[in-house]
Amino acid sequence: MSSPNGLVCFTNCLLPTEDGGLVQKDLWIDERRGVILDSQKTFFLRKERPDRVIDLGGNILSPGFIDIQINGAYNFDFSVYDGDDEAYRAGLKRVAESIVETGVTSLLPTIITQERSLYPKILHLLRPYSTPTSATLLGWHAEGPFIQFAKRGAHAPQFLVSAKEELKSFEEVYGKENLADSEDWLMAGDAQDAVGVRVITAAPEVDGVMQSVEELVKRGIVFSIGHSIATTDIATAAVQRGARLITHLFNAMPQLHHRDPSIIGLLGASPHLSSPQSPTQSHFGAVASLQRVPSLVRRAAAQEGPKATSEAFDDVQTPPQTPVLRAQEGLELGLQKGKVADLAFERPFYELIVDGIHSHPNSVRLAYSAYPDGCILITDAMKILDPKLKDGVHEWRDGKRFVKDGDKLYLEGTDTLAGSVVTLDKCVRNFSRFTGCSLGEAIKCATYNPARCLGLEHRKGTLRPGADADLVVLDRKGKVLSTWVKGKEVWRKEN
Amino acid sequence: MSSPNGLVCFTNCLLPTEDGGLVQKDLWIDERRGVILDSQKTFFLRKERPDRVIDLGGNILSPGFIDIQINGAYNFDFSVYDGDDEAYRAGLKRVAESIVETGVTSLLPTIITQERSLYPKILHLLRPYSTPTSATLLGWHAEGPFIQFAKRGAHAPQFLVSAKEELKSFEEVYGKENLADSEDWLMAGDAQDAVGVRVITAAPEVDGVMQSVEELVKRGIVFSIGHSIATTDIATAAVQRGARLITHLFNAMPQLHHRDPSIIGLLGASPHLSSPQSPTQSHFGAVASLQRVPSLVRRAAAQEGPKATSEAFDDVQTPPQTPVLRAQEGLELGLQKGKVADLAFERPFYELIVDGIHSHPNSVRLAYSAYPDGCILITDAMKILDPKLKDGVHEWRDGKRFVKDGDKLYLEGTDTLAGSVVTLDKCVRNFSRFTGCSLGEAIKCATYNPARCLGLEHRKGTLRPGADADLVVLDRKGKVLSTWVKGKEVWRKEN
Repeated sequence: MSSPNGLVCFTNCLLPTEDGGLVQKDLWIDERRGVILDSQKTFFLRKERPDRVIDLGGNILSPGFIDIQINGAYNFDFSVYDGDDEAYRAGLKRVAESIVETGVTSLLPTIITQERSLYPKILHLLRPYSTPTSATLLGWHAEGPFIQFAKRGAHAPQFLVSAKEELKSFEEVYGKENLADSEDWLMAGDAQDAVGVRVITAAPEVDGVMQSVEELVKRGIVFSIGHSIATTDIATAAVQRGARLITHLFNAMPQLHHRDPSIIGLLGASPHLSSPQSPTQSHFGAVASLQRVPSLVRRAAAQEGPKATSEAFDDVQTPPQTPVLRAQEGLELGLQKGKVADLAFERPFYELIVDGIHSHPNSVRLAYSAYPDGCILITDAMKILDPKLKDGVHEWRDGKRFVKDGDKLYLEGTDTLAGSVVTLDKCVRNFSRFTGCSLGEAIKCATYNPARCLGLEHRKGTLRPGADADLVVLDRKGKVLSTWVKGKEVWRKEN
Repeated sequence: MSSPNGLVCFTNCLLPTEDGGLVQKDLWIDERRGVILDSQKTFFLRKERPDRVIDLGGNILSPGFIDIQINGAYNFDFSVYDGDDEAYRAGLKRVAESIVETGVTSLLPTIITQERSLYPKILHLLRPYSTPTSATLLGWHAEGPFIQFAKRGAHAPQFLVSAKEELKSFEEVYGKENLADSEDWLMAGDAQDAVGVRVITAAPEVDGVMQSVEELVKRGIVFSIGHSIATTDIATAAVQRGARLITHLFNAMPQLHHRDPSIIGLLGASPHLSSPQSPTQSHFGAVASLQRVPSLVRRAAAQEGPKATSEAFDDVQTPPQTPVLRAQEGLELGLQKGKVADLAFERPFYELIVDGIHSHPNSVRLAYSAYPDGCILITDAMKILDPKLKDGVHEWRDGKRFVKDGDKLYLEGTDTLAGSVVTLDKCVRNFSRFTGCSLGEAIKCATYNPARCLGLEHRKGTLRPGADADLVVLDRKGKVLSTWVKGKEVWRKEN
């Protein structure tokens, strides 16, 4: 099907725009270079005509989906390395080549907390990577080990660490070479010197983490707040230092408490009121400020939520018991008066698992209406993600078994949820249904928003001229019809 | 200052519009009839000219504020009746005449849970009421006794009741004549036959309450969900039956849990997904549905929030322990499959206490961005509300004392909040500052929105022709300069 000039024109289709719209318009690509073209320039200025015109029958031609948090799929777990490099590489390849059926053309394999010695072994295998027929691995998302014990979820408690030596601690765990400053990391493709760590999920209240945020950010890494019990003040301070993302909003963090809305509350933060030293401070005598918190992290961690006194007075509950830092730590964090008052504040992006199970549709809609431009859909999927996998009982690890029941996954004999198996294309459809937003707006949350979060919006998640021709054709209900990577069709739905 | 035709023209002012804008425009009123005029008609058709032109110097001319939840002020507690009708009436008059300095021209005195025999004694004193120089008492807001024990706040536990006989229980407590169907209740002015109860705050999960909602609503009463542990399903069902308001959002209700966002989550509810029998149901195996909940109200009530298991699996907490009804009760509520699937759903209004203490600015902004048109600012103020009251220690009741520190009120020797003393005009200013909305949008939340909630938007909270000329002049920062009731200036700021 290749052609003399390699120009392909998709016609009779709807193109998602960066503001969440859908417009009827042709899209031109250069299938040899694998990039999107400026159709005006190509047709009118260069007087070129396409070798191939593809009529999409009124369907949607979207940028390929980007999943920035996925633990595994097709029976491969990114976090399990048993010493066999070839087997691991084969697993990566299998995921990258299979996942395109879900419309995903870029992903960030996520490594949960590991035994320390395993990091260097895994990380050299997780460089940015792609094959001509696969989705692109953009590097990796390191979730842990610098996370909060009380919100560790499935992360192995014995491997959690603090960052006592600040940035040096991060370098020691992930490897200094993986945190090197690199402006054009994607340009490096799968070259040996490409930087691996794209996103780090950590808890800013953990010793030494807050002090490392700025330096990590400078090196082009997305710092994501997650598995954390950060108070509003701490979460805000992390954002002021450059934290740019919230890991799976709602999960592994405090509930939204109205008097200390914590991490979730960042979605409602107003730039001019967000400094810990802002005017709000004086209104929040009841909320422990960093400067005068006498308690211990562990004590706070042991308390899962606010307790209502409700004994004597109307409509009032005690504030949440979330003091997280010792006074001395507060000082060490540089949060004392005046020090960060002039730092910028922009609300962070936030990840949502929209499988209809991890969060109620009303919660999803609440978050989205608070900050539509920050919304990023993720699967956070486990290795059993596979659209073809049948419902029933399956083997897990450590001799455990789980039950798959549609998109619900739970431990056999219990009601305990065991992670996600939803595909990203289904998240897009769910999201549109749950929030009432248009399909174009939902698509944006799986394409342009994650690309912006990673600073890749010129290359991925967009239909701008010059961007990679990573595309997914969806029907009007959002079902995947075909997937294209760098200008080549790599998957097509069977009729 | 009266004039032959009684026409007054306010000029050089900004008028709030019903969509939250502020427009430069004159406003004409008839000070003898106390109503707002259609300036076009008056000037061009009737060729009339005003006897008086008032130059407002570029300030804002707003509809007077409406406070639909206020417990007392100026040392008078609406809920305390000691047998002396004259003293009680004098207290009402004092509040109504003094409160205008805060820009409030209409209010709903709120009666918290009483010893049963006191209701008939108080209620005949709380008919709609006004004097020529006072704010208008619109009737009363009955908060309790049909509320949830676990979220009772300051309400006396021994006086809480269920509604076993459904509507009859409500009639017995409040008096049948106070719940009579009356379409033009405000038209009746302070006539003896005017209906007193305008808003009832109750917990829909309390026995018999859900079954009473529709009949109460039919009688023109606003049913407000509050002091409740209603699950998402129950709260949704109450709204489908006509519940129209949420009492002091965030306070005296479950936190927003992402998998059962409960009452707060109603702000994110989508009409087409809100039925308990909707498609979402199938996605929520983890959330107890009404049809198969085997536990007891008290057991649920004893559990304040979800507990994280966090032992084995990633990012997953157990769902909140909020089953509230016995299976049999679920059936009695008529919530079985299919029965309410076709009921309408419109998101309820919600009250916010924006004193900077009861809810964090981020929480306020989250709620507001989810559903701006539903937002109603209230003071929920205690009897010590008085802008002239100095900070310091004051007598309370039952020998207790409290400390007033700005807008913060706490029990002496503790950190326990003891209610609100914020004025509504300050709430408006806070709200604009916390959310970043314009002053016009904030004004709407204290005028047009509460009027719509009460079904009074043709008479109050608006500048439409024919509406009462209840007005407040605000400077550009939202500070009250003067207040007008039915066309007469009743308060003016001293220079």
